Amino acid sequence: MRYNVRASGPLLGLGNQELLAGGPVPGRRFAVCDDGVPASWRESLARYFDHHGVDARILVVEGGEQCKRPEVLFQIIAEFEEFGLVRRNEPVLIVGGGALMDAASLAAAIYRRGVPFIKVPTTLLAYVDASIGIKTAINFNNRKNLVGSFSAPLVVLLDRGFFRTLPSREISSGLSEILKLGIGCDEALFHHLEALAPEVVFRDKFQSQGGTVLARAIDVMIRELEPNIHEDNLCRAVDLGHTFSQVFEMSFDKDALRHGEAVALDLNLSCIVANRRGLLDDDALRRVAVLTETLGLPTKVPEVDPGELWRSVAERTRHRGGLQRVPLPRRLGENVFVNNLTFAEVGNAYDRLLNQHWR
Amino acid sequence: MRYNVRASGPLLGLGNQELLAGGPVPGRRFAVCDDGVPASWRESLARYFDHHGVDARILVVEGGEQCKRPEVLFQIIAEFEEFGLVRRNEPVLIVGGGALMDAASLAAAIYRRGVPFIKVPTTLLAYVDASIGIKTAINFNNRKNLVGSFSAPLVVLLDRGFFRTLPSREISSGLSEILKLGIGCDEALFHHLEALAPEVVFRDKFQSQGGTVLARAIDVMIRELEPNIHEDNLCRAVDLGHTFSQVFEMSFDKDALRHGEAVALDLNLSCIVANRRGLLDDDALRRVAVLTETLGLPTKVPEVDPGELWRSVAERTRHRGGLQRVPLPRRLGENVFVNNLTFAEVGNAYDRLLNQHWR
Repeated sequence: MRYNVRASGPLLGLGNQELLAGGPVPGRRFAVCDDGVPASWRESLARYFDHHGVDARILVVEGGEQCKRPEVLFQIIAEFEEFGLVRRNEPVLIVGGGALMDAASLAAAIYRRGVPFIKVPTTLLAYVDASIGIKTAINFNNRKNLVGSFSAPLVVLLDRGFFRTLPSREISSGLSEILKLGIGCDEALFHHLEALAPEVVFRDKFQSQGGTVLARAIDVMIRELEPNIHEDNLCRAVDLGHTFSQVFEMSFDKDALRHGEAVALDLNLSCIVANRRGLLDDDALRRVAVLTETLGLPTKVPEVDPGELWRSVAERTRHRGGLQRVPLPRRLGENVFVNNLTFAEVGNAYDRLLNQHWR
Repeated sequence: MRYNVRASGPLLGLGNQELLAGGPVPGRRFAVCDDGVPASWRESLARYFDHHGVDARILVVEGGEQCKRPEVLFQIIAEFEEFGLVRRNEPVLIVGGGALMDAASLAAAIYRRGVPFIKVPTTLLAYVDASIGIKTAINFNNRKNLVGSFSAPLVVLLDRGFFRTLPSREISSGLSEILKLGIGCDEALFHHLEALAPEVVFRDKFQSQGGTVLARAIDVMIRELEPNIHEDNLCRAVDLGHTFSQVFEMSFDKDALRHGEAVALDLNLSCIVANRRGLLDDDALRRVAVLTETLGLPTKVPEVDPGELWRSVAERTRHRGGLQRVPLPRRLGENVFVNNLTFAEVGNAYDRLLNQHWR
């Protein structure tokens, strides 16, 4: 399959036809909208549909991990049913951050065995990560993404105009996934980030100067995901930064530590492991740490039980057919996969991270 | 895709390797087993795995529509997780009737975005219907199969030895789906059923003489389903008997009216509609009624609100992209699809069915 990802001008501009894809106009549409999306965007969306003679229902759902629960999944499905969604030609619009995207696309994927849906990411994290790819998910039993599907959207519509209203911290969280791609997959992307870094924490500058980084990040993501869409190959470079991050993420509430921040901690931890194995050299390790800080990502490391970090490796291993297949950067822009990570190694690296010995 | 459906000798025979497909031996397996399966079968299953050095967990779940609820779906998923199911090479065995098959295969389809599963139907209905095809489902919001997926099993293993312990009424209920295939898709199958009919209510005879009918029914099902696996074509001959049946089925509890019995009522109702339109001739209509009775299927028609029957047509229409696409037999073994069914027509036909005017 081919990803259908389109960068677009202002999506909510009345002249733009993109949001009408896949269904009749005039007609009806159902939109699931993140409550993190400013009310003014939602009003623009309502106006957009009104302008095009589309009778739209906009369901507002609380974004963040909160919405990735069975109760919310079934609430969204019940709303589809009440709307009387037609099975084939009324694509559901999913407008919001990564968590809402995961949950609402699962709802669309299993409602009547699948109705078409369109993803419109409104956060940087969703833009570069959750919207690309075909994974849907909710959490269950205290496990992240335990329930989900591989379900392709009709199209992913990218508009970085949404970032204008994002808090800097949200921008930083999204940049973390780009940092991951730079470290593990594409050295040029790492350089672009380094060049951009002093500016990006100011979101207006990111608007004007972020284009190259974003376009490259999307290209790298698609290059990594497309040949392995159903994860038949369990060695995935994009899993870098996700070996330990769930431990950080699940140990603190979302205001204390956001997904991208947890990924940043994991990236630095993984780089220390790689460095001690003689893979990533000292200079690269230091550059990663400096860039992490410049991107507004956490340098202060929260305390967790190292046993939990190790259990996370065990969990990945089980998920990957019994082999660890842990990605570690060999040098900037290139991963290797290892199967012989040890508890001692992880514990030592965490200790170094905690005490920032590597700086 | 190709269906992988295999008829087999006694599945639980210790020499049979079929149940071990798709995973290591010795190893581990998780089985979801219908509580309608006799305890002795479950013991044989446990013995089978034990014999092959497989550490098996057998989860017993209440069968019937009861299990097609979100609570049971998530209960099964929680059990997968507690077992620590490995994602790729520990196929879940699903042993039971159609309802359990629908629910447990949805659980397998969305647990960690899909783990492999093997279907082992133990009722005639599951054997000829639910096990063939790739639909999974649970009910929600008082709607049948509102939530589900298209997910192919690793393999479907057929063993009609399971029918030996089925009550006659269960046999009849399964025969109804075969009757449907005979009326709508394959005249020869209808003839086979007519030839077999006086015997089949005695299940021992069905064991010895049912082989031809079963093999033909499976062939016809695969022929109908395979080219249209994701239902891109919304005109489906196998939907005959399912235009009104949900009204009968949802109006009474499962002991009052079983799925196949509701389908039989629908078949007769559809045949009356077809007959009054000048499609199916009087002789064929009478043969359908006689065969229905001989197969032990209901001839006494329960009272429902004709408005509900019409709402069921409206619901199908919505599900089929806005056109009714109702299958009606033109003659035995051949359907046509109509889009202009009227409320009056349905009401009149139901009145005739209720009063058995056509006999």
